[in-house]
Amino acid sequence: MTIRFGLLGAGRIGKVHAKAVSSNARAELVAVADAMTEAASALAEQYGAQVRTIEAIETAPDIDAVVICTPTDTHADLIERFSRAGKAIFCEKPVDLDVERVKTCLRVVDEAGATLMVGFNRRFDPHFQAVKRAIAEGQIGDVEMVTIISRDPGAPPADYVKRSGGIFRDMTIHDFDMARFLLGEEIETVSAMASVLVDKAIGEAGDFDSASIMLATASGKHATISNSRRATYGYDQRIEVHGSKGAVAAENQRPVSIEIANADGYTRPPLHDFFMTRYTEAYAREISHFIDCVESKSPAAPSGADGLIALALAEAALKSVTEGRAIKVSEITGPLADRSAFQGR
Amino acid sequence: MTIRFGLLGAGRIGKVHAKAVSSNARAELVAVADAMTEAASALAEQYGAQVRTIEAIETAPDIDAVVICTPTDTHADLIERFSRAGKAIFCEKPVDLDVERVKTCLRVVDEAGATLMVGFNRRFDPHFQAVKRAIAEGQIGDVEMVTIISRDPGAPPADYVKRSGGIFRDMTIHDFDMARFLLGEEIETVSAMASVLVDKAIGEAGDFDSASIMLATASGKHATISNSRRATYGYDQRIEVHGSKGAVAAENQRPVSIEIANADGYTRPPLHDFFMTRYTEAYAREISHFIDCVESKSPAAPSGADGLIALALAEAALKSVTEGRAIKVSEITGPLADRSAFQGR
Amino acid sequence: MTIRFGLLGAGRIGKVHAKAVSSNARAELVAVADAMTEAASALAEQYGAQVRTIEAIETAPDIDAVVICTPTDTHADLIERFSRAGKAIFCEKPVDLDVERVKTCLRVVDEAGATLMVGFNRRFDPHFQAVKRAIAEGQIGDVEMVTIISRDPGAPPADYVKRSGGIFRDMTIHDFDMARFLLGEEIETVSAMASVLVDKAIGEAGDFDSASIMLATASGKHATISNSRRATYGYDQRIEVHGSKGAVAAENQRPVSIEIANADGYTRPPLHDFFMTRYTEAYAREISHFIDCVESKSPAAPSGADGLIALALAEAALKSVTEGRAIKVSEITGPLADRSAFQGR
Amino acid sequence: MTIRFGLLGAGRIGKVHAKAVSSNARAELVAVADAMTEAASALAEQYGAQVRTIEAIETAPDIDAVVICTPTDTHADLIERFSRAGKAIFCEKPVDLDVERVKTCLRVVDEAGATLMVGFNRRFDPHFQAVKRAIAEGQIGDVEMVTIISRDPGAPPADYVKRSGGIFRDMTIHDFDMARFLLGEEIETVSAMASVLVDKAIGEAGDFDSASIMLATASGKHATISNSRRATYGYDQRIEVHGSKGAVAAENQRPVSIEIANADGYTRPPLHDFFMTRYTEAYAREISHFIDCVESKSPAAPSGADGLIALALAEAALKSVTEGRAIKVSEITGPLADRSAFQGR
Repeated sequence: MTIRFGLLGAGRIGKVHAKAVSSNARAELVAVADAMTEAASALAEQYGAQVRTIEAIETAPDIDAVVICTPTDTHADLIERFSRAGKAIFCEKPVDLDVERVKTCLRVVDEAGATLMVGFNRRFDPHFQAVKRAIAEGQIGDVEMVTIISRDPGAPPADYVKRSGGIFRDMTIHDFDMARFLLGEEIETVSAMASVLVDKAIGEAGDFDSASIMLATASGKHATISNSRRATYGYDQRIEVHGSKGAVAAENQRPVSIEIANADGYTRPPLHDFFMTRYTEAYAREISHFIDCVESKSPAAPSGADGLIALALAEAALKSVTEGRAIKVSEITGPLADRSAFQGR
Repeated sequence: MTIRFGLLGAGRIGKVHAKAVSSNARAELVAVADAMTEAASALAEQYGAQVRTIEAIETAPDIDAVVICTPTDTHADLIERFSRAGKAIFCEKPVDLDVERVKTCLRVVDEAGATLMVGFNRRFDPHFQAVKRAIAEGQIGDVEMVTIISRDPGAPPADYVKRSGGIFRDMTIHDFDMARFLLGEEIETVSAMASVLVDKAIGEAGDFDSASIMLATASGKHATISNSRRATYGYDQRIEVHGSKGAVAAENQRPVSIEIANADGYTRPPLHDFFMTRYTEAYAREISHFIDCVESKSPAAPSGADGLIALALAEAALKSVTEGRAIKVSEITGPLADRSAFQGR
Repeated sequence: MTIRFGLLGAGRIGKVHAKAVSSNARAELVAVADAMTEAASALAEQYGAQVRTIEAIETAPDIDAVVICTPTDTHADLIERFSRAGKAIFCEKPVDLDVERVKTCLRVVDEAGATLMVGFNRRFDPHFQAVKRAIAEGQIGDVEMVTIISRDPGAPPADYVKRSGGIFRDMTIHDFDMARFLLGEEIETVSAMASVLVDKAIGEAGDFDSASIMLATASGKHATISNSRRATYGYDQRIEVHGSKGAVAAENQRPVSIEIANADGYTRPPLHDFFMTRYTEAYAREISHFIDCVESKSPAAPSGADGLIALALAEAALKSVTEGRAIKVSEITGPLADRSAFQGR
Repeated sequence: MTIRFGLLGAGRIGKVHAKAVSSNARAELVAVADAMTEAASALAEQYGAQVRTIEAIETAPDIDAVVICTPTDTHADLIERFSRAGKAIFCEKPVDLDVERVKTCLRVVDEAGATLMVGFNRRFDPHFQAVKRAIAEGQIGDVEMVTIISRDPGAPPADYVKRSGGIFRDMTIHDFDMARFLLGEEIETVSAMASVLVDKAIGEAGDFDSASIMLATASGKHATISNSRRATYGYDQRIEVHGSKGAVAAENQRPVSIEIANADGYTRPPLHDFFMTRYTEAYAREISHFIDCVESKSPAAPSGADGLIALALAEAALKSVTEGRAIKVSEITGPLADRSAFQGR
């Protein structure tokens, strides 16, 4: 069985997914939609697909699944529409920047019984997967403390920052998801500090560019996250998990692994300078996993609930910075009765 | 000029300092005092020194300086006595477990005009010094975020834990000092989380064995500290400083640096398993620096005020855990007018 | 312009090149030929190509270039035929196992003015290319000593060994080419030692499984090569170049870069265990370079002469082992007048 | 029992051994002799020893052992004299630059039943010892191929070169000993290449500054050695042993292990730049081992025969360069009957 895909959004990340879908022997890119017709045409031509409107894809009998790469503020609406249209949905994170809107959306997904996967691509990085596997195999015993260092090569323009939902919702959200993925237990408390150290324009846009976050689970496991919007040495993405029997760490990735020695010392080249080259393999594996789920009609992970919780953690972090105290995640997500959205995971 | 030393306390750490003093060409170990006469005799004999009482050392004309390695609860008293006796004083950390007692003690030191150095030995580790030097040389630009991972090879007995003042005052205190040393700016806010994950007996003794701490300065620089009382792979002591132009990190130290490759992969031996073998060189350099200060009659660092601030940070961390909020260091140290103790640094 | 390819040989390496050709936006795989019709069909179908006979490809107007992946003993004949047919030729190494046969073949290529590239894929490995680039940029000054460690994960079956031409012609030949590539000066003398340490069956087949080789150029630069047919830890491929101002080294590659720490130490996973996964990127870049050369009608490198010289070095190494002395390469290639074959490079 | 030492030669290496002897709790430095009286006095004073003549030390009843650090051409004579005087002897390598002279000397040692240890300090480096231990524990199975990379930070003055006996006798001799130490089987054949690439003055002095050497044992194990008199990045001393079940390698040592990352990449400081700082611990362990042997009256290793064989390998290497062929070590050492000198080991 070949899964027939429609791609919504032919921008930067849309291109990445178009390639991943086309390279996958079990998938076919059938249609591309984008408000910018030229972008849609170029991508469609490259992969032998058709240009269609979103509406046409919605009702097309030859489309099994969609990949949503449109602007963030359209995600929730599109997820609802395509859930109702009976398509499997892969949506770039976040579902929405507002926790309440996400909840409503996920309720629609649940009612429609749709398959929804949210694009936390890092879970599919081969190195981070190897970390997860080492934990699952018991190689480090019980997980106790997760350390995530996550720094972008360079700060985004202030314009982007304004639309981004802020550093916690835009950048740390990946690290929140990774912390949950590795802790293997739900996070209960969030404490955060944030500063503007890199670019004053980011501060003027009401956001931060440097952040430290501590997370704790009910049983007392911790995770710490260190974020910066700028690292001169490249895209710094490290993870370390300390457990009762040992520790496991994923090193940074660099495009070329040589070392030059001279009187100044031993120098290795900088890291990848772009998330797309760093996570090339992760994007391919992510789509492959989505295809697995669609084929086997099994629930996809990261699920919509995973997306919702990561967003709630981001909101808790922001509240912690503002109020100078540790925030219970339940303050954001509400009492347990309301947490049914989290059950789908 | 040879600095003539009296050693107070011939226990584990006393032996380390006896060796450092004796190996130093500018110093001479003249006398050793210990309540356990046999311990004092053994050490005195090994280094050609005399056994004397603390009182005798206090009034001895042939003693220029003392190294205080007695139990913690005697430190403040001994510092005061030897300050008044006109001796230069090197004291193992902490000065006392109580902030108010430390303040009183430092006032006596100030009035006596005594030289007091507190044993934060890690500042003298060649690798951490190289990190500091790289910062001072501007190699990473402005310091923005310090990451300290500090884990003991194994948890201390519950008995020790009870007398220790708790993980923040006993273990993290070194990391607090290191954070200040590297941030180059006073810490304003402390936020901490702590758990019992390693040994329930530690919890029953009222302490924690796992802790995460975030620190922030007035200008928004951050430090994060990750502590565990147990690391199966050895004495894990890493430091990383991220700055505007780059980053500098000190790797872990291991006694033997070989690598064995086979079908299971590439394996390097574990780290040092004891702080004394890990910090051998640091202890020698520490005493050498103290001798420099005594010789040149210049103020010693880490000073008594450094000891006081590190202790205040520990207290703030504990308060943060208890109250679930970020603590201003000034809540511990009092309003600025009272902070004269910090001026001596 | 799209270069239209015929693929001769649909075996293991044929598949690698089929993929590389098909993935290249400037190339099209038009036809596949193989004595095993099923293999040809399967590959043709996968990439939307036709199955044709070698004869049909030879005369086809819609074929610009061929990739020769047939058994070694057919290479020279096919090169001659396709040279005369006016096709650009990419041929897997070696051109032939016999130096004289290679010379004759290259003469035909020269007369036909054909483009011939020989498949020394390692020249296109991104890491080794970075080594070459560092040298070219003058980062290590004048090249003085090249060290190549090259070990297979496991020994081939004795059957393969018998047809292989022996370790020097089959395995070391890649290292000979790499040594020349990096030394930047022709090799004058070869000295070698060889043993059977891994598998007696290899010795019974008249070959060796462990070899050490020293090479020297006229100006006194050296290269040493260390070969083994078995490395339990994976496909061990390291290169180091020591020069007047420094050194540059390419580290080993491994599929996953995590590190697990426990009481036994710090362990990283083994290396790649197969040359095709190790050199995936190299194969793609190799074909891309061939396409460059065909498009621009410029001479291809590694050339037929490069293939000939590498083979001559292999023969010299074998002679050195047999005779227990250093062999001048000119003893193999004959007096300078006869070396016109080398000029094409 | 305390071993009472006389030190012959108060130069650079004499100072190293004076310190090692004095720091050893089981030894006492009693007397120092040197033609330069001031050098002897300074050293004697530093360690509380007396200045004596060689003759006085020879007949002194309060001297158990001597450390010979005088110029090379006096070694054999002094070994003979002190053997006859019944003292245990530690002699810096080499015993002599002439194989025949060494043989005669060792015969005298044998007749006197004296304890003689030759200063191949690298056998006592903790990292190389760990390599040896890993082999002994069977962690890599049977040893097959040893790779030694050994480069000095800077070339010695031509003056030194003239007296040195040449690169093989002066520098490679350490690597020859290490190869034997690790191969665990006697070397049968030597093949070498040598060039002048670093400093023409060395060539004018009749020596080489760059050398590659291959060694083979009777069972076909190999070792390769790569030497250069200059490495801009420091004292490059690496060892790797490949075996049937795996490999073990000793990494380079550097005084400070930090890493600085910036836009140019990741840089670690250069290596040690001096053999004395690189091998500090080895020198201490070497003397400690000698004391063990003297105390236990057991034969010392590396023995005089070890010194002789290493020298024979050096001579074989030189002969190989001159004659362009592999040299059997027996060509240097003579027929087996004459090899009794090697039995003592």
